[in-house]
Amino acid sequence: MHVTPLRWEGGVLFLLDQRLLPREEIWVACRTANEVAASIATMVVRGAPAIGVAAAYGMALAAERGDDLDDAASTLKRARPTAVNLAWAVDRMLRASRAGADLTREAELIHREDVEANMRIGRHGAQLLGERATVLTHCNAGALATAGYGTALGVIRAAIEGGKHVAVFADETRPYLQGARLTAWELQQDGIDVTLITDNMAGHFFQQNRFDAVIVGADRIAANGDTANKIGTYTVAVLAHAHDVPFYVAAPISTIDPDCPDGTAIPIEERSAQEVVEVFGSRVAPEGIAVRHPAFDVTPARLVSAIITDRGVLRAPYESSIAALFEERVHA
Amino acid sequence: MHVTPLRWEGGVLFLLDQRLLPREEIWVACRTANEVAASIATMVVRGAPAIGVAAAYGMALAAERGDDLDDAASTLKRARPTAVNLAWAVDRMLRASRAGADLTREAELIHREDVEANMRIGRHGAQLLGERATVLTHCNAGALATAGYGTALGVIRAAIEGGKHVAVFADETRPYLQGARLTAWELQQDGIDVTLITDNMAGHFFQQNRFDAVIVGADRIAANGDTANKIGTYTVAVLAHAHDVPFYVAAPISTIDPDCPDGTAIPIEERSAQEVVEVFGSRVAPEGIAVRHPAFDVTPARLVSAIITDRGVLRAPYESSIAALFEERVHA
Repeated sequence: MHVTPLRWEGGVLFLLDQRLLPREEIWVACRTANEVAASIATMVVRGAPAIGVAAAYGMALAAERGDDLDDAASTLKRARPTAVNLAWAVDRMLRASRAGADLTREAELIHREDVEANMRIGRHGAQLLGERATVLTHCNAGALATAGYGTALGVIRAAIEGGKHVAVFADETRPYLQGARLTAWELQQDGIDVTLITDNMAGHFFQQNRFDAVIVGADRIAANGDTANKIGTYTVAVLAHAHDVPFYVAAPISTIDPDCPDGTAIPIEERSAQEVVEVFGSRVAPEGIAVRHPAFDVTPARLVSAIITDRGVLRAPYESSIAALFEERVHA
Repeated sequence: MHVTPLRWEGGVLFLLDQRLLPREEIWVACRTANEVAASIATMVVRGAPAIGVAAAYGMALAAERGDDLDDAASTLKRARPTAVNLAWAVDRMLRASRAGADLTREAELIHREDVEANMRIGRHGAQLLGERATVLTHCNAGALATAGYGTALGVIRAAIEGGKHVAVFADETRPYLQGARLTAWELQQDGIDVTLITDNMAGHFFQQNRFDAVIVGADRIAANGDTANKIGTYTVAVLAHAHDVPFYVAAPISTIDPDCPDGTAIPIEERSAQEVVEVFGSRVAPEGIAVRHPAFDVTPARLVSAIITDRGVLRAPYESSIAALFEERVHA
């Protein structure tokens, strides 16, 4: 039984409520595009590929109900600003609709393609790891962040399936604790060796030469390779660079935004202060305190050792390796 | 009414329970050295200078009760391993006892000297800040970590008292959340402009050039300037270096351990997994997960722009600037 964040059953999209994991496994039923958009905005479902797949089903739900598809598309796209997979999936569904395709089947195709893309990412990335490796990861770029198998964690799964001995250190990833709640949980489910640390411990273990590689996911990759990912990723990249440890980004090509020239053009979502000052309903800071909560940061391409995609491993200079990838697609 | 973590009243040491701040202000009464040692070990009181002062009162309590002072000394010293102020204060009390001094008056003297040292640290450090500055700090090196006024936060207080405009960003400092619970609270009490961020956001704000300086405290400074401080300090130092922002350590000379040649000789306390996986009693990670919890890390001297002490600002090479300080003391 593999971990998955979403199921499509009987014309209803069921989302595993990731805000409650690992304490409770509650599935939220979505029957309209609005319900899907609300689940994306409130982070019932999160992770760039997973919200792309969820949004595709949101479009399918709108089509089945006879709702206006342009309205549904704009509601879904507005749900979260940073991950490009959301807009990518919605636009693909609009094109499918114009072409007269069955939108439920198109959503199921996007769903299946994402799992397959992750398996390919895993195979490409596994080659970058040695026979014994300890990998640091940040946030959750796993099965729960995708339609299944995961991007960064897919690389780890593929390496282990290929016989390598891989141990994982997971940053807990404040404020939403995706590392503690989701990565630790899904790796534990799969029997993978995982050690949880707070985000601020990573530097100490870099200093002690504990890590052979860093692998993270991405929410949007610009045409020059600059990568937006969960807040804290940039700090990990600076540490990896300072300690000469390779820093890998694993993502399907749907996460690459060729229209976005560089990181400065990526919108960074600012989320609520409440998510910082409350942990499971317990207040951890004084009332009335000023708080900042950028949900993502941008890692400049110069700190990225390679981008592991479903179409192969990209290396710097990323302007040309990414451009070549998109030219291939046009010619394919 | 100034913030203070301890009061000596009627022959009893009262400690403000820092585990409960800012939700509750509860004072714990200690009437024996064992009770003081337990309060230090469980972090009722924390912060290198504050636990030194608390331990001095612990020795005074032992003396008043007629307890064996060598037993009391070893119990107190064992309470926490990293901060050198603890051993420094206990050894000074033992010497005072041998010299026939009144131990209550000696503890009160250590208490008063610590506040005065912090005021001097503040005056020396304030000169390093511009007329307008945004300062990042990590953990709590404030009034609550000392007998009052603070070391890193003492520099900020002194700069503001001198008419400078200083805003503070406070790392929340997982797992114990000293930044969110203590630094944010005590700066708010004093009306100082403070913004709370999670530890993993610091890199993003460095990247956006938000910080003019970093100021942190220390638990032990080796003879070569290597500095042990709260876990996460090293990461902040790497980020400051990568962004060309000065990184200052503020500490009284009792935090310098001239017998410790470098950072590798500083014992790093490993605390319980429970402090990582539980936040105010809520579990944030799956049962049975492996956890690491080093409570401190070591920042190498090469990343320290200056050490702000009560005897002036030390600059690299620290071997000689620290040695000169201790020679002065011998000759004084």
